[in-house]
Amino acid sequence: MPGPSQTMRPMVVTMGDPAGIGPEIIAAAFCARADAIGGRIVVAGDAVVLHAAAQVVARSKGVAVPVFEMLGSLAEWRPVAGRLAYVQACSPVPGVVSGQVSAEAGKAAAECIEWAAKAALTGTARAVVTAPIHKEALAAAGVEHPGHTEYLQALAAAHSGVVVERIPVRMMLSCPGLSTVLVSIHVSLRDALNAVTTDQVLQTLRIAAAHFQRCGVPQARFAVAGLNPHAGEGGLFGREEIEIIAPAIAAARCEGINASGPHAPDTVFMRARQGEFDVVIAMYHDQGLIPVKLLGLDHGVNTTLGLPFVRTSPDHGTAFDLAGTGRASPSSLLAAIDAAWDMSAQA
Amino acid sequence: MPGPSQTMRPMVVTMGDPAGIGPEIIAAAFCARADAIGGRIVVAGDAVVLHAAAQVVARSKGVAVPVFEMLGSLAEWRPVAGRLAYVQACSPVPGVVSGQVSAEAGKAAAECIEWAAKAALTGTARAVVTAPIHKEALAAAGVEHPGHTEYLQALAAAHSGVVVERIPVRMMLSCPGLSTVLVSIHVSLRDALNAVTTDQVLQTLRIAAAHFQRCGVPQARFAVAGLNPHAGEGGLFGREEIEIIAPAIAAARCEGINASGPHAPDTVFMRARQGEFDVVIAMYHDQGLIPVKLLGLDHGVNTTLGLPFVRTSPDHGTAFDLAGTGRASPSSLLAAIDAAWDMSAQA
Repeated sequence: MPGPSQTMRPMVVTMGDPAGIGPEIIAAAFCARADAIGGRIVVAGDAVVLHAAAQVVARSKGVAVPVFEMLGSLAEWRPVAGRLAYVQACSPVPGVVSGQVSAEAGKAAAECIEWAAKAALTGTARAVVTAPIHKEALAAAGVEHPGHTEYLQALAAAHSGVVVERIPVRMMLSCPGLSTVLVSIHVSLRDALNAVTTDQVLQTLRIAAAHFQRCGVPQARFAVAGLNPHAGEGGLFGREEIEIIAPAIAAARCEGINASGPHAPDTVFMRARQGEFDVVIAMYHDQGLIPVKLLGLDHGVNTTLGLPFVRTSPDHGTAFDLAGTGRASPSSLLAAIDAAWDMSAQA
Repeated sequence: MPGPSQTMRPMVVTMGDPAGIGPEIIAAAFCARADAIGGRIVVAGDAVVLHAAAQVVARSKGVAVPVFEMLGSLAEWRPVAGRLAYVQACSPVPGVVSGQVSAEAGKAAAECIEWAAKAALTGTARAVVTAPIHKEALAAAGVEHPGHTEYLQALAAAHSGVVVERIPVRMMLSCPGLSTVLVSIHVSLRDALNAVTTDQVLQTLRIAAAHFQRCGVPQARFAVAGLNPHAGEGGLFGREEIEIIAPAIAAARCEGINASGPHAPDTVFMRARQGEFDVVIAMYHDQGLIPVKLLGLDHGVNTTLGLPFVRTSPDHGTAFDLAGTGRASPSSLLAAIDAAWDMSAQA
């Protein structure tokens, strides 16, 4: 059960790249479920961008424009339904054009991320939900991190005064009925093969198990996928299952982690979805993301495991082609907000 | 439209390993749709095994035992609904025990495959549908081929008096709404990476395009998946898309093949399923099989492309644990029979 201090803290939702659909899906999420959203979150963003997005969404959907409440700090927040609280978390960005990459937009997005991370790291935010950012805009603003995961990892490490390697993180992708945690993410498949080591697989299991423990699922059933077709078929199509993955599973089991496998990759996701496992540990990006994206439709959620706070995001990008139309669906963001709320209930 | 000679030729369905579920799913398919099955196929099998399987299925389902008709050759066949025609295509196997690997069972399965292939290669069979075989039983019988695909390829090459390399084949997996053709199949992921060459990708596109042309879909839309996450993100996570895959696509387009890509692997299957593409060319086994198995449920069909005849099979194995119970589902076999019938309509 959530403690009293927990229920009094809001989650922070970053606006993402102001030229993308982030501000609009936040407004749309509020329009769809004003009570739940208003009672849980504070947006880290820019006043002008957020108001403009709200106008676009209200016009597109034919609904009333959300009522905003600007806060000076999270301490001012009270869980009042029906209002969309926000903080001015970045320098104003008056010149942003929807759908266009710009350093200004990237800088604003980065400032909001830093604001949100600080709030979570200092304990004033219950959790962080991030709207999509644009890699090129971020790079144009001089931010070297390729995505939220690496950025938040670096911020957490800096906050604790340790090197990033001391805060190992993993990406989890979830959709209704299927969750997968990835051993590696944004590297070539060739490099991903080399990242499949006993240490990395075991660390992935430990990080995932610690997360589910904190979420109140101490005996979550982890299915570890093989790397090769049919999980190598007894060494016939590759020996990584025998030499690398099985030893990691055995070590995890010795630590009390309910892990099984290595399982044939082409059926393990189907089996998990049918209820045999709670989570699939995927050996590389596409092994896990192909099934989740296929099933996820509008409800995929990305969670970073291993950070000292709960962080989720919708499972889509900035969709520059849709930005400014008010038509982007808030479904995945709503799922990300719900997931972060549930995961942080026991934190 | 099928020509008159085509409609007078039956398809041959091999019984598969007699200790597996093959004979039972054939009987169950007939019980489920006697008219369609009886009017289209001749089973290549063993009389005692088939009759025993029919008894088990009839008892399990509480239905009448199928009426069998033994033929001396395919020339005797007439498309009469309501009877299950078969030929004694192998030496009798009186001692087979359900669910047990044996050289006798493997030998019988191999003889049925050879009988069916010969019928198709000489033009007396319209197409071949294979029930599942067991690799260990086949090996115990001294058959060196790891599966149907390689076995049929070798038989076709021998029939034409050429080396197997002259009859390049590819596996296609299909389920309602999604078809994928694989560049490589039963090799380690590391070897699969090395098999992604411009020649191999182009050959895959050519074989797939020729198949769809023969099936009456000359302008099938082929989506070529990338190899790396996000299709390499412009070279950031691997350069195979730029140096290997894109040139193959360009060459295929010059030959009139409607190919696009390389597309991000984690969304291309979703896009195909939503109707944007007809077929996804997958760079390795699990890239294609994970989505098809996830969606296929009971209706996956495996097709071998590149052979001089149409060959399909259900997308599952011998299921030794179910063999002898009469409970195995004939859904995938029925889908394979329907697919082979449709594909061979214009052959």
